[in-house]
Amino acid sequence: MTDFSGWMAAIQARTESALARFLPSADMAPTRLHEAMRYSVLGGGKRVRPLLCHAAGEIFGLAPDDLDAPACAAELIHAYSLVHDDLPCMDDDVLRRGKPTCHVEFDEATALLVGDALQTLAFQVLAEHGGTPPMLALLAHAAGSRGMAGGQAIDLGAVGKTLSVEELEFMHIHKTGALIRAAVLLGAHAGGADGDARADLARFAGRAGLLFQVVDDILDAEASTATLGKTAGKDAVQNKPTYVSLLGIAEAKRKAAELRAEAKQALERFGARGARLSDLTDYIAERSF
Amino acid sequence: MTDFSGWMAAIQARTESALARFLPSADMAPTRLHEAMRYSVLGGGKRVRPLLCHAAGEIFGLAPDDLDAPACAAELIHAYSLVHDDLPCMDDDVLRRGKPTCHVEFDEATALLVGDALQTLAFQVLAEHGGTPPMLALLAHAAGSRGMAGGQAIDLGAVGKTLSVEELEFMHIHKTGALIRAAVLLGAHAGGADGDARADLARFAGRAGLLFQVVDDILDAEASTATLGKTAGKDAVQNKPTYVSLLGIAEAKRKAAELRAEAKQALERFGARGARLSDLTDYIAERSF
Repeated sequence: MTDFSGWMAAIQARTESALARFLPSADMAPTRLHEAMRYSVLGGGKRVRPLLCHAAGEIFGLAPDDLDAPACAAELIHAYSLVHDDLPCMDDDVLRRGKPTCHVEFDEATALLVGDALQTLAFQVLAEHGGTPPMLALLAHAAGSRGMAGGQAIDLGAVGKTLSVEELEFMHIHKTGALIRAAVLLGAHAGGADGDARADLARFAGRAGLLFQVVDDILDAEASTATLGKTAGKDAVQNKPTYVSLLGIAEAKRKAAELRAEAKQALERFGARGARLSDLTDYIAERSF
Repeated sequence: MTDFSGWMAAIQARTESALARFLPSADMAPTRLHEAMRYSVLGGGKRVRPLLCHAAGEIFGLAPDDLDAPACAAELIHAYSLVHDDLPCMDDDVLRRGKPTCHVEFDEATALLVGDALQTLAFQVLAEHGGTPPMLALLAHAAGSRGMAGGQAIDLGAVGKTLSVEELEFMHIHKTGALIRAAVLLGAHAGGADGDARADLARFAGRAGLLFQVVDDILDAEASTATLGKTAGKDAVQNKPTYVSLLGIAEAKRKAAELRAEAKQALERFGARGARLSDLTDYIAERSF
């Protein structure tokens, strides 16, 4: 078993290649749309969802080759959501992964279509590369109005409001948690995990997803735009409720530590086979960008 | 066999019920998003794609019950595309199916998420109700950057330009043709059609899709906003190339007649079983809204 940072670099590199292969070539018509799709997906991103999908699938003995499609499907849904989230009618952001956002680099109508077509591509990749109807339904449920898109809608309604911590968690369980859960469970499904294993992985993913968000809120409050590659301090400027604004920075960090421990506990049944997911939990907790 | 108008009314009614069932209830959180999704899909529309899907599936002996899911999946993709197409950064339209467009009735961010979530729901409905991976891949290919979304991108690039009739057809084959083709082929796939039958149906759908667009262009030039339930005369105002602007109204009508005849010819092998699709072709050719 290679060390974690070597494994992570290898999965990130193969995800980049697989995405480049799944995305239509930039010289295929309509070229501007395809160029903008590739611009928005390639050459950046931590690839957290693909890492989670590979780590979960490896528990059940799957080779990386078998996991590229579900891993990329989850990443394409994530990439589409970022492009739409950055649009003027949503967060109106100009910087993403250290580059101008899609609608700034291209134009708003193109960015709308880029997001639309990336979502479609996610389902196409999964359907054409071994995804079963239950896997496709799982991804759709996670992405849709009772998952990620629903979380965005709850987020829209929350700007300027005082939320309770419970309401904030409800939002994040949808907005980021649902797709993180789907990434883990797609790997488990692909590997033929049984119901008990899937239940533990769902519990793991629930904690890991919230951990990811709490850390995001801490980073937004503490880190610089240069480090993040996206605009820092936006939550406060936009008066968005965050774990930091509700709990304060110290309590948010305590919450992160608790979620990290609970996520690891959920992996107990897998013993050494759960090491990658455990290491990933540490990576999510300790990341600085 | 019931008469065509009775059959059409029955399929439209059952499609409305099925869509109402597949769409999340408006009292489920996030309620505003679900309300806006239902507003955008229910209570309007000719349901041309569901009609085509049912008519194609019936050729192979399928009951309407077996065709609701693929028919609604195609309609949900269509509905999402209308919501996004009406946005200010695209066609900036205020009227659709006789009602204010989604972003006018709700707001722009909600309309963006409505389109996103309707697309997801299309794949979810198909995956959860008997859709096979090849059917899901077919729908995705038709909706994506080399299908409908690609056609929208070509359309964006064509505003204010002089296109040849060939370029105009290339645009429409993607923008509206791809999804019409998918609606027909989903019905055929669900019914277990063999390769020869599918090839004929693909040829039929190609002609029917272009016919639909030529008639659309004629109606936009000749009909009133009240009759259409959407803003009439927009193509000329927006300086968009159409069959009417390129060919003139008389030649556009001749073209429609030719496509109508070719579509019917493609149905020959099916004999009487192709009557619904043949009648639908007449309906598409003769519609006034």
